[in-house]
Amino acid sequence: MINRVTLIGAGNVAHHMGKALYAAGVTIEHIFSRNQQKSNDLALLVSAEAISDLSRVKPCDLVILAVSDSAIPEIAATLSRFLPADTFVVHTSGATPSAFVASHFRRYGVFYPPQTFTIGVEISFAEAPLCIHAGNEEDLRELEELGKRISTLVFRINDQQRQWLHLTAVVVNNFPNHLYALAEEVLQDHQIPFDLLRPLILETARKVQTHSPAPMQTGPARRGDQATIEAHLYLLEAYPELKEVYEVLTKNIFQKIQ
Amino acid sequence: MINRVTLIGAGNVAHHMGKALYAAGVTIEHIFSRNQQKSNDLALLVSAEAISDLSRVKPCDLVILAVSDSAIPEIAATLSRFLPADTFVVHTSGATPSAFVASHFRRYGVFYPPQTFTIGVEISFAEAPLCIHAGNEEDLRELEELGKRISTLVFRINDQQRQWLHLTAVVVNNFPNHLYALAEEVLQDHQIPFDLLRPLILETARKVQTHSPAPMQTGPARRGDQATIEAHLYLLEAYPELKEVYEVLTKNIFQKIQ
Repeated sequence: MINRVTLIGAGNVAHHMGKALYAAGVTIEHIFSRNQQKSNDLALLVSAEAISDLSRVKPCDLVILAVSDSAIPEIAATLSRFLPADTFVVHTSGATPSAFVASHFRRYGVFYPPQTFTIGVEISFAEAPLCIHAGNEEDLRELEELGKRISTLVFRINDQQRQWLHLTAVVVNNFPNHLYALAEEVLQDHQIPFDLLRPLILETARKVQTHSPAPMQTGPARRGDQATIEAHLYLLEAYPELKEVYEVLTKNIFQKIQ
Repeated sequence: MINRVTLIGAGNVAHHMGKALYAAGVTIEHIFSRNQQKSNDLALLVSAEAISDLSRVKPCDLVILAVSDSAIPEIAATLSRFLPADTFVVHTSGATPSAFVASHFRRYGVFYPPQTFTIGVEISFAEAPLCIHAGNEEDLRELEELGKRISTLVFRINDQQRQWLHLTAVVVNNFPNHLYALAEEVLQDHQIPFDLLRPLILETARKVQTHSPAPMQTGPARRGDQATIEAHLYLLEAYPELKEVYEVLTKNIFQKIQ
């Protein structure tokens, strides 16, 4: 059973995961971050010791690398100089192969929450699914047990599946958020409050919590309503970037229903 | 004060608006639909009389045309043969000019809820904004008063603003839902449950309820993370349609942050 954890990183994921682990009774030994202010802030929240030098990391039950994708290989390599090769080390990335940890540690794995975290935006970590992966069944069970203490949804996902999951997470998170931003910009130009769209945004997301999205599709493209589409494209002459997005997505919806 | 309403249409909007009006104590006199089963079903829910012939519509305080955009001109014309020209008639469409009603009735207007409704999916109508428009201040006040009985958000929006609002409603509702559908398809192909993305979808929408979307943007395009984008595009070789959507939206996010 995993009881003592060290957290490398103090960004959005480290922050929310650290707080969830701490609340579940897990001891956070150390928090490392290159940004000392951030590691101090988080250490205070989870009664951990902030360190600014990886050489000070001590052996523990699990080391969690909650750092940016690009930092994982280097940090795993550096840690391998100070920790035994049988230390259990996982990363939290959707996009990084577990091999980047496995090349330095015999007990490696992934502890990936496909959720969007922002420091200062409260969220129930329990409702974030946790996707786990490890090099052997015993380690997988350890991660599963730890995961279930902080999340109600723990799934085993291999490296290849995780690539697809991360790709689709971009599609359902980054892309819709960008569409929201484009819409807000257009509304501002016409003195219309974005509040008029907020309930629609929420309901669109709420609907697919219990339904499959495809049958829920509505709108001019779904109906083949050319008159409305043409009126929209005419308006969009003033917004060439949004116009391109509109055209591609409209064409794409057409293709799907045929 | 508007107390007696006739509802033309028995589809998604008519269904939810009719139930909300009825619950607010408004008398629904008649429900007309070409689909008799639908008008009977809705009439039963709101203690109204279902009619299948527009000639049977009697004068009342307000006639609400909650029908498809393409049916509005014809139905307004037909109604003008059976109702006095000073009958107050509004439509509920985001995309249709109020002139299509104004050409037949002196008291005309719009009663447009920018929300997504599906029969069978429960929703609090009070949380749907209502966008109103009318030909004179007195009628506008009448609509405002009626609107406030069923919605907590009643806004005055002119025809031109409503066009922009409808366009952006497509952008934040139809397009994200289509992205959800594309993601589900990809996940199914790789034996990954869509449940892993549902909390992320909801959180993405929840975040912008209190924040502006642009500063909430995250992801590889926002970070300029070319390695991840290239890995995704490589995976997407198998999904040419999603690949095109991915490329356009990624380029668009790049442009915005520069």
